[in-house]
Amino acid sequence: MADVAVRSSTPSADKRTPEGGAPTAPRTAAEAHEARIDQDAVTAALLGTWRETRLEARELIKDPIFWQKPGQPMAEHRARVLEQLRLLVDNNGSRRAFPTEYGGLEDNGANLAGFEELVLADPSLQIKSGVQWGLFGSAVYQLGTKKHHDKWLRDIISLDLPGAFAMTETGHGSDVAAIGTTATYDPETEEFVIHTPFRGAWKDYLGNAALHGKAATVFAQLITGGVNYGVHCFFVPLRDDTGEFLPGIGGEDDGVKGGLNGIDNGRLHFDHVRVPRENLLNRYGDVAADGTYTSDIDSPGRRFFTMLGALVQGRVSLDGAATTATALALDIAITYANQRRQFDSGAGTDEVVLLDYAKHQRRLLPRLAQVYAQFFSHDELLRKFDGVFSGRTDTPDEREDLETLAAALKPLSTWNALETIQECREACGGQGFLAENRMVNLHQDLDVYVTFEGDNNVLLQLVGKRLLGDFAKQFKGADAADLARFAIGQTAGKVFHGAGLRQLGQAVTDLGSTARSVELGLRGDHQHELLADRVQQMVSDIAGRLRPASKLPADEAAALFNENQAQLIEAARAHGELLQWEAFTDAVNKTTDEGTKQVLTWLRDLFGLSLLERHLAWYLINGRLSTQRAGAVSRYIDRLSARLRPHAQDLVEAFGFAPEHVRAPIASGAEQERQDEAAAFFAAQRASGQAPVSEKSLQKKSKK
Amino acid sequence: MADVAVRSSTPSADKRTPEGGAPTAPRTAAEAHEARIDQDAVTAALLGTWRETRLEARELIKDPIFWQKPGQPMAEHRARVLEQLRLLVDNNGSRRAFPTEYGGLEDNGANLAGFEELVLADPSLQIKSGVQWGLFGSAVYQLGTKKHHDKWLRDIISLDLPGAFAMTETGHGSDVAAIGTTATYDPETEEFVIHTPFRGAWKDYLGNAALHGKAATVFAQLITGGVNYGVHCFFVPLRDDTGEFLPGIGGEDDGVKGGLNGIDNGRLHFDHVRVPRENLLNRYGDVAADGTYTSDIDSPGRRFFTMLGALVQGRVSLDGAATTATALALDIAITYANQRRQFDSGAGTDEVVLLDYAKHQRRLLPRLAQVYAQFFSHDELLRKFDGVFSGRTDTPDEREDLETLAAALKPLSTWNALETIQECREACGGQGFLAENRMVNLHQDLDVYVTFEGDNNVLLQLVGKRLLGDFAKQFKGADAADLARFAIGQTAGKVFHGAGLRQLGQAVTDLGSTARSVELGLRGDHQHELLADRVQQMVSDIAGRLRPASKLPADEAAALFNENQAQLIEAARAHGELLQWEAFTDAVNKTTDEGTKQVLTWLRDLFGLSLLERHLAWYLINGRLSTQRAGAVSRYIDRLSARLRPHAQDLVEAFGFAPEHVRAPIASGAEQERQDEAAAFFAAQRASGQAPVSEKSLQKKSKK
Repeated sequence: MADVAVRSSTPSADKRTPEGGAPTAPRTAAEAHEARIDQDAVTAALLGTWRETRLEARELIKDPIFWQKPGQPMAEHRARVLEQLRLLVDNNGSRRAFPTEYGGLEDNGANLAGFEELVLADPSLQIKSGVQWGLFGSAVYQLGTKKHHDKWLRDIISLDLPGAFAMTETGHGSDVAAIGTTATYDPETEEFVIHTPFRGAWKDYLGNAALHGKAATVFAQLITGGVNYGVHCFFVPLRDDTGEFLPGIGGEDDGVKGGLNGIDNGRLHFDHVRVPRENLLNRYGDVAADGTYTSDIDSPGRRFFTMLGALVQGRVSLDGAATTATALALDIAITYANQRRQFDSGAGTDEVVLLDYAKHQRRLLPRLAQVYAQFFSHDELLRKFDGVFSGRTDTPDEREDLETLAAALKPLSTWNALETIQECREACGGQGFLAENRMVNLHQDLDVYVTFEGDNNVLLQLVGKRLLGDFAKQFKGADAADLARFAIGQTAGKVFHGAGLRQLGQAVTDLGSTARSVELGLRGDHQHELLADRVQQMVSDIAGRLRPASKLPADEAAALFNENQAQLIEAARAHGELLQWEAFTDAVNKTTDEGTKQVLTWLRDLFGLSLLERHLAWYLINGRLSTQRAGAVSRYIDRLSARLRPHAQDLVEAFGFAPEHVRAPIASGAEQERQDEAAAFFAAQRASGQAPVSEKSLQKKSKK
Repeated sequence: MADVAVRSSTPSADKRTPEGGAPTAPRTAAEAHEARIDQDAVTAALLGTWRETRLEARELIKDPIFWQKPGQPMAEHRARVLEQLRLLVDNNGSRRAFPTEYGGLEDNGANLAGFEELVLADPSLQIKSGVQWGLFGSAVYQLGTKKHHDKWLRDIISLDLPGAFAMTETGHGSDVAAIGTTATYDPETEEFVIHTPFRGAWKDYLGNAALHGKAATVFAQLITGGVNYGVHCFFVPLRDDTGEFLPGIGGEDDGVKGGLNGIDNGRLHFDHVRVPRENLLNRYGDVAADGTYTSDIDSPGRRFFTMLGALVQGRVSLDGAATTATALALDIAITYANQRRQFDSGAGTDEVVLLDYAKHQRRLLPRLAQVYAQFFSHDELLRKFDGVFSGRTDTPDEREDLETLAAALKPLSTWNALETIQECREACGGQGFLAENRMVNLHQDLDVYVTFEGDNNVLLQLVGKRLLGDFAKQFKGADAADLARFAIGQTAGKVFHGAGLRQLGQAVTDLGSTARSVELGLRGDHQHELLADRVQQMVSDIAGRLRPASKLPADEAAALFNENQAQLIEAARAHGELLQWEAFTDAVNKTTDEGTKQVLTWLRDLFGLSLLERHLAWYLINGRLSTQRAGAVSRYIDRLSARLRPHAQDLVEAFGFAPEHVRAPIASGAEQERQDEAAAFFAAQRASGQAPVSEKSLQKKSKK
């Protein structure tokens, strides 16, 4: 792993010793004479449970054939990514999730871990793979039964059968239950008639639809015997071997997008297209030859959510890919900030390295802490996913927890990806705007991650509703005394855990002995208490405001809910942040090396304090922090940033990206060479006695 | 102007009357039975002082030849934009700023106003025009003298002489004073030798450098007689008529960028390139044949800043262009949000229009208020610019105020452009990610606005230093009694005005009689007091913390300044926000129509309250708001959003964009047609009695 962890061009500590007076602390752990992190151990922790698969994927994409070429015209980019998918097939990249009898490996966690790493090569590759194997392939596998698997899975794995996942419509995205496409059973011919009744019901934004898809898994309202049994999924052939649409099928290209232009997104519509009855993917509902509908799941609502839940892996993998992409941007920006100089400090002749500026630390280091939290929380999410999908822990409760966890984490990590990548790009100035330095394309490609696979705000609202539901459950059968106790808030912490939320006070070891924050009352356990209390209080407040809803007419109840929508989303976000914090803390607790533990504790504190700072007004208004302690939060973040500054390079190198993953020239050491060359030029000029004197010094002299 | 203000496809109010129970207030002013804005009057106010020029420019760019083609390969895009520049020349677009004797119009304010509108066609067109006439042309005009004007201005205006503005280097951007390129005078030949001593001193990111520039205005350290007189500007021919570099000149293409790919940005380097002595643009400093340096400005620092200040127009125009682009994104997103439906409210059969969701209002309406503030503050900036550059108010104080104002406003509006465009794109879901709907390209193109023409953080730091300087001036010669009075804060408001800040209590009429916010103590004059106090308190606090610096060794003083860097930038931002608020309030006060005044007052309040909410923790920690009143801020924003919701469409239509400016299909009325078609389909189905029954209703029936 030596080639992964250490970049040859990393400037050595001695090169970075300031000549002039440095405005801040040492720049490396060595200079600081502090315990430093065990980089390999941290890399292993960040790579997480499926580190072997991640390393395998990273090794594969060192081949330039997988790298995005910025500015490549759309048509060429699409062809290139299709070719990359074929190479994945040849290299174990498409079969990990599927059953062994079709050539698969039945390893769900490893499958997502491997896919996530592809974001380092080209996000279009990651997402087009996700369309083929994670959505289209998964629909056949998870929603279909053996006859479907036998018929199509091998060709799906081998890419002989590229397909589209036709769920979203122009008129319906997040609200899948309301899609307009119909699949009406015709018992005469034992066929389903797939039909698009109006323009808004065109399938839209589908990868593989514009060019490469030979078939699609089409979601439609299943109608038989005059009854609509709700959304089901159908396998529908799209194109013949020459690539022409089959009769009754039409479509168009979505054209240029904000990013991910290596994927051929497009629209599809169906004019009474007939498919055999067997093409209904019938794991959760079936239609007999005579048109009789049957399902193991009686409730239409539960059946619908069970089907959707079988496809949760898209959200799970976006959380991971967004985290990895964010880490890449931070690696580039922090490496550059450790080499690039700008303005002298007024204290010496040397210009100041960017990362020595307090503002620059403030811009980048809390985000570094955030991405560490995300790596750890993502690994937890992935383990939960693997548990459920391997069957080991496949219970309704675990499934529900998994879906809630994914819905809480995906919005946070994908939004943070955009914010952090943007901050990194700005922190690199003009260099950051050049495509060669990666960050602009990362932002453009990841942009849609915040609205696809579930719009972030809609997902958080789902989480919020789950939190409200869990909250309400605490009171089922509660007697007056219980309610009174709750009302005075004494046992709120004990009666309410929230979805996926740990038992308060558990799983969080007091790190007080090593943390230096004790003096401020903002150490680990205080952070946890503040973060957890906020979730509880917000949910409880919203529940209180919504209580009258059950007695109101439907429209007034809807209006009341609407009034609380923004706060509910905010509560869900707070819940997700708490989960990230807890995952980070668990990871710190698992650390054995003392130096590593110390640095990661500071980083975890920086994460926790940054969360407190973001919501400081809430803590003040709700009396959870005094104005004095609230004032201390920002100062403490400043101190933590300065304290972590010497470790920043180690912490980004612990991501374990090789030069083939980073690729950005500004993080290659080229900037350090430029700085060294300029410094050497001026030094030689001074030594030669040929340096021009400055007008200013001349004026000073003449005044004397 | 009827064709500008009213879009034919705007849904009429009756079409939007909800069938089911709507969760919120009326959706149009008509429905609300409220006074509505006089749209034409608001359009005129937003277009501002140079509205005729803006309308002329908008008319010109209705021609599709000026429109950006998303996905166009870089080479074609560059050729297209060059061709567009030629069309501008033919249509009055290049001569407004220049003297009449060279075919110009000598109308500085109109010139920038006209350029700013080009952002609606293609930001590459706006910026490439800016490079040619605003930077290269301005350098010759503002830094050169008559001999230079005679020689080059006509060809610059006509584009026969396309040029690059070669200031920034790979190693030095914001710190122009430290650039590495040298211009060493050789009295033997009466030439300057332009030279690039090392890689970091390559000129970089220069528009027109990669392909089209025949010459460049090159900034270099002027050295004569062994003395460095600091940065001066030189006219340097680059290419021969075949487009080949002249001897000694080299360069390379910057390649693909995050946006603005219609501009041929590139790098240049010089190997002892000789230019005649006359090629020094010598308005502020000259070298005689014998090598003697002379300047009207003795202080090298002041001379340097005077030269840079002559080029302030770039920043001024970015403030305007960013504001217009932001308005465009809001027009698209709010129009779509008024047509697109998603989820039923649980109260009726109809799905809910996006803008009826409280969260959606929260996402978009405060940003609508923000962009209104920016239009008004930009017009003030432009008037100040025109005053100085026309000579009418060209005093050192006015110049300094102009530069400070530009440095305060440009960062706020360009950052807000990125945030708002992103929010708008997300608010449109998958549609927002399609290039045809404009927002992704607006974000990509405007991305670099936050770091070029002065990095935003660096600019705000300049503003912060100015505020500190003004603050310190109050105490020059102050006696102990004055200081004591200041210390107890009684007269702080009177002794400290801040740069560009109005006399407190002036220029702000109490709007209490119409504002309904009186009950909360958050009406107009309170907003002003809170915003202004914050600037003063922050500056005063920082000044207090920096006071020991003068007695410290240089390195410790630098460290102390560094510790306060982030807060200084924050104080500058607060100052800019106050200026925007004041400009908005002035505009409201000038309004005569009662309905308009009412709606704009709500909008101004929404802007003011949003600023308070953003900094709520500060107000609490500093005792400026009680927790009770702070809690009221967010609730009041919710109420203002709901109150403004029926006016949202009017307020975006008042931007006055024609369909040729908007172009986004989702804002064309196509979405309304899709919704109407779907609604008609279901209505007809219900009427026919052929609608399938839902499984759920069937189950309910069978249970009975």
